[in-house]
Amino acid sequence: MTGLEKRMARLFANKGKLFVAAFDHPQIYGIMDGLQSTPDLVASLKRTKLDGFILNPGMVGHINPKAMDDKVLVLRASVGGTMLTYDSYDGNYHQSIASAELAASLGADAALFMFVLGGTRDKDTQLELARVCDEYHRLGIPVIAEVLNADYTKNNETDFIASGARIAAEIGADIIKAFYCKDFEKVTCNCPVPVILAGGPKDADITAVVREVVSKGAKGLAFGRNLFQAEDIKGLVRDLDAALRG
Amino acid sequence: MTGLEKRMARLFANKGKLFVAAFDHPQIYGIMDGLQSTPDLVASLKRTKLDGFILNPGMVGHINPKAMDDKVLVLRASVGGTMLTYDSYDGNYHQSIASAELAASLGADAALFMFVLGGTRDKDTQLELARVCDEYHRLGIPVIAEVLNADYTKNNETDFIASGARIAAEIGADIIKAFYCKDFEKVTCNCPVPVILAGGPKDADITAVVREVVSKGAKGLAFGRNLFQAEDIKGLVRDLDAALRG
Amino acid sequence: MTGLEKRMARLFANKGKLFVAAFDHPQIYGIMDGLQSTPDLVASLKRTKLDGFILNPGMVGHINPKAMDDKVLVLRASVGGTMLTYDSYDGNYHQSIASAELAASLGADAALFMFVLGGTRDKDTQLELARVCDEYHRLGIPVIAEVLNADYTKNNETDFIASGARIAAEIGADIIKAFYCKDFEKVTCNCPVPVILAGGPKDADITAVVREVVSKGAKGLAFGRNLFQAEDIKGLVRDLDAALRG
Amino acid sequence: MTGLEKRMARLFANKGKLFVAAFDHPQIYGIMDGLQSTPDLVASLKRTKLDGFILNPGMVGHINPKAMDDKVLVLRASVGGTMLTYDSYDGNYHQSIASAELAASLGADAALFMFVLGGTRDKDTQLELARVCDEYHRLGIPVIAEVLNADYTKNNETDFIASGARIAAEIGADIIKAFYCKDFEKVTCNCPVPVILAGGPKDADITAVVREVVSKGAKGLAFGRNLFQAEDIKGLVRDLDAALRG
Amino acid sequence: MTGLEKRMARLFANKGKLFVAAFDHPQIYGIMDGLQSTPDLVASLKRTKLDGFILNPGMVGHINPKAMDDKVLVLRASVGGTMLTYDSYDGNYHQSIASAELAASLGADAALFMFVLGGTRDKDTQLELARVCDEYHRLGIPVIAEVLNADYTKNNETDFIASGARIAAEIGADIIKAFYCKDFEKVTCNCPVPVILAGGPKDADITAVVREVVSKGAKGLAFGRNLFQAEDIKGLVRDLDAALRG
Repeated sequence: MTGLEKRMARLFANKGKLFVAAFDHPQIYGIMDGLQSTPDLVASLKRTKLDGFILNPGMVGHINPKAMDDKVLVLRASVGGTMLTYDSYDGNYHQSIASAELAASLGADAALFMFVLGGTRDKDTQLELARVCDEYHRLGIPVIAEVLNADYTKNNETDFIASGARIAAEIGADIIKAFYCKDFEKVTCNCPVPVILAGGPKDADITAVVREVVSKGAKGLAFGRNLFQAEDIKGLVRDLDAALRG
Repeated sequence: MTGLEKRMARLFANKGKLFVAAFDHPQIYGIMDGLQSTPDLVASLKRTKLDGFILNPGMVGHINPKAMDDKVLVLRASVGGTMLTYDSYDGNYHQSIASAELAASLGADAALFMFVLGGTRDKDTQLELARVCDEYHRLGIPVIAEVLNADYTKNNETDFIASGARIAAEIGADIIKAFYCKDFEKVTCNCPVPVILAGGPKDADITAVVREVVSKGAKGLAFGRNLFQAEDIKGLVRDLDAALRG
Repeated sequence: MTGLEKRMARLFANKGKLFVAAFDHPQIYGIMDGLQSTPDLVASLKRTKLDGFILNPGMVGHINPKAMDDKVLVLRASVGGTMLTYDSYDGNYHQSIASAELAASLGADAALFMFVLGGTRDKDTQLELARVCDEYHRLGIPVIAEVLNADYTKNNETDFIASGARIAAEIGADIIKAFYCKDFEKVTCNCPVPVILAGGPKDADITAVVREVVSKGAKGLAFGRNLFQAEDIKGLVRDLDAALRG
Repeated sequence: MTGLEKRMARLFANKGKLFVAAFDHPQIYGIMDGLQSTPDLVASLKRTKLDGFILNPGMVGHINPKAMDDKVLVLRASVGGTMLTYDSYDGNYHQSIASAELAASLGADAALFMFVLGGTRDKDTQLELARVCDEYHRLGIPVIAEVLNADYTKNNETDFIASGARIAAEIGADIIKAFYCKDFEKVTCNCPVPVILAGGPKDADITAVVREVVSKGAKGLAFGRNLFQAEDIKGLVRDLDAALRG
Repeated sequence: MTGLEKRMARLFANKGKLFVAAFDHPQIYGIMDGLQSTPDLVASLKRTKLDGFILNPGMVGHINPKAMDDKVLVLRASVGGTMLTYDSYDGNYHQSIASAELAASLGADAALFMFVLGGTRDKDTQLELARVCDEYHRLGIPVIAEVLNADYTKNNETDFIASGARIAAEIGADIIKAFYCKDFEKVTCNCPVPVILAGGPKDADITAVVREVVSKGAKGLAFGRNLFQAEDIKGLVRDLDAALRG
């Protein structure tokens, strides 16, 4: 057993599926409804079926350790600018903000990096993923690549998601986080590593979407606004968990 | 207790508030009225309620150690060019001029970095803050991020300041320094770390402003020109201390 | 004997020729017919005359060690972007994605880097090859340079291939991988290191092509689509092996 | 006592003033009248009141050690291109050519870096000065910043020189080298470190200029062409020494 | 004695002159008449008066050690792109391809770097030469700077060559390699280090040219095409040696 294998097993310990809440949005949007106090929200979700949380490096220190004693920490470890103005976001290339040593010191069970393709800097995107994979794997920490298209209108196209996931896995990612697409089995069948769902189409029945992608090979969920802006977040977690792990 | 926690406690030791004078302006403006001799000015303020001073790295060596034996040193540790001509200032992205080792060797209790958002290089701004947080935290030195908008006309807009403060905290800042805005409680309520006031609106009653922001959750003051160009600096320090710590 | 000499001898142990299958395409194209599951394909080719495989770093971990216990691993160690859009490929300059330490940790017997000339960044191409040669040679790992022209229409011109191969060898490459050209002996006679064939002209009788270039000094084959999209891949491997090693 | 304090004391050992000859011009101009052989010129000035010489790194090795056994070596440690064509000089930003270790190995008592402000890269200028100050101070070697304006017509304006000197000192410079300006006391009174004169206005009585700036607080001279193209260099050194140290 | 002094003495051991053949052209031109097999050519010149050879890093490993047991190895250690297309050569700035450790491991007695001035990146050229001088001198390996003008039509102008040679020496070069110019004594008299001739004017009597520059202070020859494309290379070496060392 390697440390990487041990951590991968930990992530998928509950029936081979991973269910995390993504609370990393403020690094790009700033203040957000539902995320006024991330520490309080995390603490309130202690007794749910959530396996853990995606958090930015600066937020980890403010979480009560007891709120996460049986949860996994997925460190959001890349940035791409902000949404404060049109020019202040880099839609082509995101970069790491956390060394593997920092992730280890924060107790991260995995680290998440945006992997933007289809733009003008795909080579840099590949180089950065390769670099962080090497760096993180030396400390036994799994790397999750979130596949994004530089052209946001293509983030639900099957061919892009399937190719993007495969490219990330060829470079070295251990887990893929990707948005919904129609033929999700094309993504999972062409990818040697587990794929988790980043989010569903707007206005869809989200639990039905989860059941569909799970039947097509998805191994987990990483939902953000769907959860932290839900009217009944705990109820939704229950429903999603049932859909995921049935 | 970690070194970082110890230093944070030191900064806010006086009734949980921090009151420092910012004398770092010459790095960008050159000579300034009131700051002909920073060492003399610092020495003259020894017996005031000021907790300490913000100084550039090159000035620290010229200060008499006895003038600061009970004061904190906040190292101004970033630059963005100068105001000598229009082109000689980089309004989008400031960078560190001081390694954490240098800060430690100078006896810094904290280090201050400009955090400029809303411009064309927000990603670089985030990367630099993440980098210095990692570097400084390894030596237990708190990082203060001063939230600035690339568009100076927006430096008193509540939404920008609240989002900028939150973004800096998500990246890793330990303290936020921000300018006055109307709904200051929106800044402090959405931010997991202490916020100190960088300055008030022109022509306002500055002590009234301090009382207002303190009532809305501000934890300190870091004033510059207001202080070093005041007619009665010691009297003003007394008034501000009273407004801050009541 | 040095480690580099030992590994070079290993690569050409079978009658002085090297025959590898190139399965590294998904890093640039994403999903591909014939490469849905690289681990399964590699395993299925265990009992062929193939000496080994060209694989991307992220794929190596998914291969069953028993499938390659007598095969060589050539690590594809450079990237140049993707083919997802016109702008997302850098046709002038490819860069390393794998440190020599990573290659060693993956058990690589050699590493393959694209060497693009005739474009706008030939100097950078030379600098990168020189850098990786120094880095890899310190760990005794041979470097294969794949000679490409920034103008794809020139990839079968004798003068370009002969000059590109020579330039790569002068910089430090241990083996050259190059496409077919008419006067292949001009390539091999001007090059101090072994040259292996990257692929033949479309619609040609590929075994005849192999016989021709071998007669003109080629020392091996590294075929991709010809193999993994073949109707009878094992039969083709047999034919190519016969043509190569007669 | 620190090594830096010891070396500063050495530089100003003769009546608190420093008088060096600047022979570093060939790095930018190439061959020059008066500097055909720097080693011979340095040797010929052994018995003068000059405290030492400003030399480029490559020239130090050609100097006879006996010619400088009681002289200080100020290493010219930055470059900005050449004057060979209009485009070959970078008027906005100069960079270090000498590590502090190299300076130490050459026996340097101080190192001189151009500090160009008022152009398009003031931030880079500040970053480079901060970096070399940190690097050189670790080895106890004083840093001299030569204040220059990107717009050469402004190199004798009081406000610029006073602000440039102060900015350099705030960053970390130990000594300022600056050109003549009318209100030189404004420079010295606003600067916490010694200021030495880089050169006077053309066609002026240079000894009168020296007397004037010394009366206004200047602590030394660093003259180049005035000296090495003088008809009677030794006589001029005598006169300048008298004007400086009276 | 330092290692650098020892190696300098070795280079000029034969009557104070250095005579090397430059076989480094293929790094920029690819295949060339006369250089089909550099190892064979080097071996064939064993019994001539040549002191050694200029070779690229990748070629050194292919030379029979016995062919060079009494020859010096000058490592060509910089690149500037290729001549494959107009855009693929960087006429303004060349960079190092060999660390000093690599040069030492290859047994280099000196290393040769192109030093291009008069273009748009003279500062970078200076920075790179300074960097490699520091790096190579730490291992005691002399640095040869080949003075080139970004404008090739100026490579035989006295003023340029004299200034370029002086600038390289001021930065740290131990030997200058320069093309022929009319007043060659102006080059040698203004330069503190030995100057060797890189090549003569086309269609000139090359031995007469050598006699002329030697009489004007040149200390050696480094000829390329003149030698390897000569009809009687051994005869030419004899003549040149006689012209050089009389």
